[in-house]
Amino acid sequence: MNTVKVSRLVKSEDLNHHGTLFAGRVAEWFVEACFICGAKHTEKPENIVCINIHGLTFTEPANKGDIINLETKIAKVGRTSFVVYGKITKNNSDKILSDGFITFVFVDENGKAIPHNIKLAEPIDDEDIKIRTRTENLR
Amino acid sequence: MNTVKVSRLVKSEDLNHHGTLFAGRVAEWFVEACFICGAKHTEKPENIVCINIHGLTFTEPANKGDIINLETKIAKVGRTSFVVYGKITKNNSDKILSDGFITFVFVDENGKAIPHNIKLAEPIDDEDIKIRTRTENLR
Amino acid sequence: MNTVKVSRLVKSEDLNHHGTLFAGRVAEWFVEACFICGAKHTEKPENIVCINIHGLTFTEPANKGDIINLETKIAKVGRTSFVVYGKITKNNSDKILSDGFITFVFVDENGKAIPHNIKLAEPIDDEDIKIRTRTENLR
Amino acid sequence: MNTVKVSRLVKSEDLNHHGTLFAGRVAEWFVEACFICGAKHTEKPENIVCINIHGLTFTEPANKGDIINLETKIAKVGRTSFVVYGKITKNNSDKILSDGFITFVFVDENGKAIPHNIKLAEPIDDEDIKIRTRTENLR
Amino acid sequence: MNTVKVSRLVKSEDLNHHGTLFAGRVAEWFVEACFICGAKHTEKPENIVCINIHGLTFTEPANKGDIINLETKIAKVGRTSFVVYGKITKNNSDKILSDGFITFVFVDENGKAIPHNIKLAEPIDDEDIKIRTRTENLR
Amino acid sequence: MNTVKVSRLVKSEDLNHHGTLFAGRVAEWFVEACFICGAKHTEKPENIVCINIHGLTFTEPANKGDIINLETKIAKVGRTSFVVYGKITKNNSDKILSDGFITFVFVDENGKAIPHNIKLAEPIDDEDIKIRTRTENLR
Repeated sequence: MNTVKVSRLVKSEDLNHHGTLFAGRVAEWFVEACFICGAKHTEKPENIVCINIHGLTFTEPANKGDIINLETKIAKVGRTSFVVYGKITKNNSDKILSDGFITFVFVDENGKAIPHNIKLAEPIDDEDIKIRTRTENLR
Repeated sequence: MNTVKVSRLVKSEDLNHHGTLFAGRVAEWFVEACFICGAKHTEKPENIVCINIHGLTFTEPANKGDIINLETKIAKVGRTSFVVYGKITKNNSDKILSDGFITFVFVDENGKAIPHNIKLAEPIDDEDIKIRTRTENLR
Repeated sequence: MNTVKVSRLVKSEDLNHHGTLFAGRVAEWFVEACFICGAKHTEKPENIVCINIHGLTFTEPANKGDIINLETKIAKVGRTSFVVYGKITKNNSDKILSDGFITFVFVDENGKAIPHNIKLAEPIDDEDIKIRTRTENLR
Repeated sequence: MNTVKVSRLVKSEDLNHHGTLFAGRVAEWFVEACFICGAKHTEKPENIVCINIHGLTFTEPANKGDIINLETKIAKVGRTSFVVYGKITKNNSDKILSDGFITFVFVDENGKAIPHNIKLAEPIDDEDIKIRTRTENLR
Repeated sequence: MNTVKVSRLVKSEDLNHHGTLFAGRVAEWFVEACFICGAKHTEKPENIVCINIHGLTFTEPANKGDIINLETKIAKVGRTSFVVYGKITKNNSDKILSDGFITFVFVDENGKAIPHNIKLAEPIDDEDIKIRTRTENLR
Repeated sequence: MNTVKVSRLVKSEDLNHHGTLFAGRVAEWFVEACFICGAKHTEKPENIVCINIHGLTFTEPANKGDIINLETKIAKVGRTSFVVYGKITKNNSDKILSDGFITFVFVDENGKAIPHNIKLAEPIDDEDIKIRTRTENLR
């Protein structure tokens, strides 16, 4: 799968009252990163609409000064909708802080769903296969 | 159930490139509103940690100048964790734009899960019963 | 009177250099909360213009992690203008941190003042009566 | 009187749903500008606390791309408190969009009011004399 | 030269992970302050486009609660372009924290460069003469 | 050279009064992206201080909904300082909107410059060689 990467620096304005990265800010960045993935694949950002955040886990906190890495890829394609998988790590570590899925739908200028023509790449490793399986079980 | 209400005015800084309310901003507001619900019930905001956004749907868009209403209530309680249900409407309408669930865990100053002592109220209407059923099926 | 409630979580981005809630942010939230009150009563947010903040006191500070509660209600109605009273408390306390009044005018699309048709409810308790008296003395 | 000047560019993030400068943003900028005036005069920003916005009028709107000029000066001094007058114009015009007064108190590290030692300059023109008169009548 | 002054209060939302003023925020404020200088001189903010930040040094840090003073003036004029010099100090000190230059071009509504008619004032002191010399050597 | 990539979605809050991406926001994102590059290479974000933006050009505008891609890499290393080159493109195009250089210094907890131990990779293509040459000529 073709990964799209976005990094962010955690600054004071991103902290909650615990002094760690605010979950609401993580959610905002996660939506934006998944959207960018969809925009890169369709080349039509103006036609993409977010319809469901299927889940977003928070396993580990992040702190001020951490570099947050958001990696996103297409995990499933329908005719007019597609699912983006995103995972979040920090600094140079591979440990996953958060991950989740978002479904987008591709629409014309009147908001009617139309084909997006994204082709889903073959899974290239075990991680991809696990993500595909999880995607099939999304609600 | 004891509902906690938060309203927001949609301003220019909240819009996506479609000129409608950005899904990432909705997600941020949703997390904050659910957190406020947990803080009101436990009276210990410093002990609450968000661990899972189980899902957040986007059924209808909102526009600049709309008043966004976020209503949240406790939907399930474990010993150390609890689930908040949130729904989003706009202006004076009852139509749901978005809804979803967040699980929080209650921790001490070392991050260890401890009992939160929230009591779950009896469901008072059909909507409550449906929310309780949905909560049981969350993953 | 029909109260409109808005809550906010105090985050790092809301603090002044004292580490307490910035007065400018309180003022911004206060204007937005009073506006939302006017919008709920008129159902025409696009027709409401803020013309005067009559006063906003700051009696007690708030800190990171506090839940700020803004309660607003219509305190006086003219033919084309109306006054909103707002008070601010924190967490589950009734102690008032800040309160004040804003006058709005209702206008048509050309900016001409027109009747808003808001009916002022009867005062229901001593607090209401005191607010009405204070409203009469605003300048 | 010794004027302190602050200018701001009105950008998209500052607009309300009318497409004009949001009154809440004006209030935030007004508090910050008056605070800067107090900080410049006392050289102790950490000792200044805002206790009352006495009023802030909104006579004329501002639009995207306008330069907002905030001019502030000390208008009255007590032993431990002082009043700052602020007025707002746009671009190169002298027409006043908004003006108002804020009272600050000077405190030690325990929050106890202490003398600030600001000397009030003599009024230098008619505008100063009018501001002084208005300050005497503040509530 | 005719100086345009802008001051800013350093708040929590402006800090990097060191707890000092974030260089990216300084750069944002610097661009805005230089832009305001150009807008005041041309009276046509809508016609000014930023084309080059020639350099911006960071010699000294600033902290939460500091008042940041940005002083800008026209340093060179071409027929359709002009260079603004900006310097940054804090509180009541003259010590320079940062300084630099920005080139703007004046354009019509189609983006075509047109004469701006700004006249460059005579240098009035040694500082002005040094700035002019530095401007001649910009790349 | 080892490139670090960051993408951003242009939203309403990022626009200037022309309705295009505000140069101050570009500068802020550019500083953050170059900082992330330094943090990834040193693994010590807390030890990196920005001392000079050598230049940042603005050749092409960006609009709401565009995906801004910031690619950064180490372009020169001294013993305690290093230079990061950054370039900005949009969407899937290779056309450069903006590019420039930032010098950082690596310091210990007392702010004293210390060796960073970054190794500069060999240039791998013509673009790298041109960047290296430009870096040698920075002032």
